[in-house]
Amino acid sequence: MQRYFVPRDNWENDQVYIHGDDAHHISKVMRFKINDKVICNHPNGQAAICTITSFDTNLIKLAVIEWLNEQVELPFQITIAQGLPKGDKLDFILQKGTELGAHSFIPFQAQRSIVKWDKKKTEKKLNRFDKIVKEASEQSHRNKIPIIQDIMAISDLVHESRNYDVKLFAYEEEAKVDHEHSFGTLVSNLKEGQRVLVCIGPEGGFSTNEVDLLKKNNFTAVRLGPRILRTETAALYVLASISYHFEELRC
Amino acid sequence: MQRYFVPRDNWENDQVYIHGDDAHHISKVMRFKINDKVICNHPNGQAAICTITSFDTNLIKLAVIEWLNEQVELPFQITIAQGLPKGDKLDFILQKGTELGAHSFIPFQAQRSIVKWDKKKTEKKLNRFDKIVKEASEQSHRNKIPIIQDIMAISDLVHESRNYDVKLFAYEEEAKVDHEHSFGTLVSNLKEGQRVLVCIGPEGGFSTNEVDLLKKNNFTAVRLGPRILRTETAALYVLASISYHFEELRC
Repeated sequence: MQRYFVPRDNWENDQVYIHGDDAHHISKVMRFKINDKVICNHPNGQAAICTITSFDTNLIKLAVIEWLNEQVELPFQITIAQGLPKGDKLDFILQKGTELGAHSFIPFQAQRSIVKWDKKKTEKKLNRFDKIVKEASEQSHRNKIPIIQDIMAISDLVHESRNYDVKLFAYEEEAKVDHEHSFGTLVSNLKEGQRVLVCIGPEGGFSTNEVDLLKKNNFTAVRLGPRILRTETAALYVLASISYHFEELRC
Repeated sequence: MQRYFVPRDNWENDQVYIHGDDAHHISKVMRFKINDKVICNHPNGQAAICTITSFDTNLIKLAVIEWLNEQVELPFQITIAQGLPKGDKLDFILQKGTELGAHSFIPFQAQRSIVKWDKKKTEKKLNRFDKIVKEASEQSHRNKIPIIQDIMAISDLVHESRNYDVKLFAYEEEAKVDHEHSFGTLVSNLKEGQRVLVCIGPEGGFSTNEVDLLKKNNFTAVRLGPRILRTETAALYVLASISYHFEELRC
């Protein structure tokens, strides 16, 4: 069933109001009619089957029929901090990372990032990014849209990292691969509700300064398998592994 | 260290000969000089550090210095059978699947595949695909280049599947998610050296006929986490999960 994320203000008891792009999608793209059903997602993470009760040019009204009890979110909040990659790779990371259950993303300007973003470019990009994660959330039937934080310097990322319970960075050069310190063991030790920050370098990897800074701030280096992954594949490995471990291996 | 896959015929005792695109890459792109070192991969899966001993316009000679003892290949042969997807998604699946350790790929014409490939288109595509997996193998430091089989009909795929020990298909509608039959349990039960075939539908998924055919031929339906993955993300989930399980969780 088609799924729409509806802002908090557009819910009123058992009535839901949809306008703008989503209204256009319902009436013009999907060509739904009165009494057709869609799923509406509330920002609190709940979702309901709703039926269309009236159409106006720019406003569609729906009524809640049944609240759903879905479990489609990872039991942890996984945040991917991604060193700015080249081209449209960040689009890709946001789309696939959303499908795979990321809670939020922090793009950061790494020393070896080839692209630099000014304020204007960032604003334009952020609008685009919001659209990508919203659509990927709808498509993958998630109940929450990941948050995309403003781009930051690595010093700000380190400051921000105080809010997390577990802090990792992808760095196979110094990752310990004995059982006790492996990525697998770190994942196994996660506790429900923990906030996890995973930091991934850009194409050229982390600089020595960045590695020192992350280590000083209690980030643990992890290896993601014995093959060398491209920057845009690393986040997907992390998220797929955590999903596999807690949603498929233990289910 | 830069890595090149060198055909069997170009090895002679401890001498290695490189010509064509790779010779151009060595001399013009990387601008290597005499005595510089690269890694050469033999088709048997072994790799050696080699030093450049002479340059000619189209032929570079190297001498083996040291054979490496690398363990970068998954302990199973994972084959991804991918229903033909739209656009350049197959390029993406081949590149990322190679990084994540796939042994081979079988593109197949599914009932709901929107694209149809004729013979001419297929030949052109296969050249391009060979290049993608070769470059991804070099970049990810693999010792084997995945095999790309000719595109086939699903009936041929079913015939081909007799050569495999474990046969799965991504189909959350019928996948059993109790612990005993979950994807995690199926992965846990893999034995070293087994040949595993994982069949993934195109954007529209498998048709009812295809599902019946696969089930009749002992393919097991699996779910890949509780979120709905796009077709191009499914193979990556499978490969990342298997790598995580055997290379990181148990290492």
